[in-house]
Amino acid sequence: MRNFADKIIKHSIDKQTALVVGLDPNIEYFPRFLVGENPTITEIFKAILRFNKLVIDAVKEHVVAVKPQLAYYEVYGSAGIQVLEETIAYAQSNNVIVINDAKRGDIGSTSEAYAKTFLGNSTISGDMVTVNPFLGSDGYQPFIEVAEMYGKGIFLLIKTSNPSSFEIQDLKLHNGEILYMNLAKDINKLALETIGDQGYSFIGAVVGATYPEDAIKIRKTLPHSIFLVPGLGKQGGKAEDLKPYFDHNGLGAVISSSRGITYCYHNEFDEAWIDISEEEMIHQITAATIEAKEQINQVRFDS
Amino acid sequence: MRNFADKIIKHSIDKQTALVVGLDPNIEYFPRFLVGENPTITEIFKAILRFNKLVIDAVKEHVVAVKPQLAYYEVYGSAGIQVLEETIAYAQSNNVIVINDAKRGDIGSTSEAYAKTFLGNSTISGDMVTVNPFLGSDGYQPFIEVAEMYGKGIFLLIKTSNPSSFEIQDLKLHNGEILYMNLAKDINKLALETIGDQGYSFIGAVVGATYPEDAIKIRKTLPHSIFLVPGLGKQGGKAEDLKPYFDHNGLGAVISSSRGITYCYHNEFDEAWIDISEEEMIHQITAATIEAKEQINQVRFDS
Repeated sequence: MRNFADKIIKHSIDKQTALVVGLDPNIEYFPRFLVGENPTITEIFKAILRFNKLVIDAVKEHVVAVKPQLAYYEVYGSAGIQVLEETIAYAQSNNVIVINDAKRGDIGSTSEAYAKTFLGNSTISGDMVTVNPFLGSDGYQPFIEVAEMYGKGIFLLIKTSNPSSFEIQDLKLHNGEILYMNLAKDINKLALETIGDQGYSFIGAVVGATYPEDAIKIRKTLPHSIFLVPGLGKQGGKAEDLKPYFDHNGLGAVISSSRGITYCYHNEFDEAWIDISEEEMIHQITAATIEAKEQINQVRFDS
Repeated sequence: MRNFADKIIKHSIDKQTALVVGLDPNIEYFPRFLVGENPTITEIFKAILRFNKLVIDAVKEHVVAVKPQLAYYEVYGSAGIQVLEETIAYAQSNNVIVINDAKRGDIGSTSEAYAKTFLGNSTISGDMVTVNPFLGSDGYQPFIEVAEMYGKGIFLLIKTSNPSSFEIQDLKLHNGEILYMNLAKDINKLALETIGDQGYSFIGAVVGATYPEDAIKIRKTLPHSIFLVPGLGKQGGKAEDLKPYFDHNGLGAVISSSRGITYCYHNEFDEAWIDISEEEMIHQITAATIEAKEQINQVRFDS
């Protein structure tokens, strides 16, 4: 059985990129050619799907994966999930890896159902899924088992990019250790048992771009886990700080950017963006993607 | 603006119950009258919706709320979410409170989208939602704000019912405190600011039925939060241990049971259950519901 970490590393080497682009559709940022004023619900869903396909076309040569954020689909109920289904199918037919950013985690039997949802053969199964470890190992173990069974992978939340992530994740424990380091040590035991040909496990870790000091420690503790690194751009993470997230070959991490790329044409002080053409939108998104890719490459191959 | 905690307490008093029934559809446990052998996908969705409606009819006079577990719908993609939409609409048209057991939690802007999904006016909005606090306060604050705005409520995970919940939730901190107690203290500050007429906040807490010793401590620390208590029955929680989850009026907690009630007719050692009739199924589920309700009432009003 192939190890999905090998596929991530192979994509990263072949395409010379460590970039992941988030698909977080928000019609407030859609130009007029995608959606007019007072759209019907059906027009909204068509616009979101068209937007996602345009973004996938624009970025596919330059990214390791796309990352749909589940909340932005669930908010539209079943119709939103239908858009997600078609988006995932479109990405996969274009040989683009899909990371479902779902942050699921529950008691064992329920986690198993979630694992099958996102990593099995359901209509919204992608290639990897983000998992919340708050319920402990019987909550994330089913994701590992289903990932192994289907040759897919997971990213466990270790240190998230948001400002209040410290409240639980950075708690100092009785033995003097920080909670996220304690968690990283537990995950490393599992990662060690599931290493592929390229030295990485299909059990990855979410480590926010906003905490590079923490990333240094986590990288040492989790040498065999690929990092999914959100928080670049609007959240405050800077490309020049990303070096410690990678190994000495410039591999082992994928950097996620969403709004900074997919809404790069948006300008909150000038409404002219709303009349942008399809060609111009694709052009700008592609340019922003290449720029982000190259910025990250410069950092990861900087010696 | 009404406080949703008041509605929960009113339902509990009016119907003389503290029971919540979980809606976790699993066609392996469906009798033949609901689904035949080798059903088509469409037949499966029809069967799940019919099952949920039968369960709601059977339990509605005896429960505070029903609790759909999102994983069991998401696993069927958009069609599963459509079943959930129709289930929620059916429950609400029958004046039954809906607790979406989604355990969501993300960075601020994404949590806001999830909050609108489950507490706003989306097609899968219910009345309350379970929330995972692992990302800290900017991850759960949007749920509190949207709940307040729409007059709804949340249950934050404090101590979950599963065997490995201790791994993170029971970590001993540097100051000697246990993590879930630290979290409970934080939540109590928010609960104190949002108390309704009945003395309870719309910010509730998930506290597993499997840890009654812990519940005693959490109850003292969170006197104004309604507890959602899963883990009764198959998970090992016992009705006779539930006393400390309630206040001295026998209020302030709702006890959730899923498989033990909805699949009460199922017998793993004798396949005869598969030929049970609709009437017999409803009869058995109603009887199991009344039995659970009365067992819990005995404990909560025991002095």
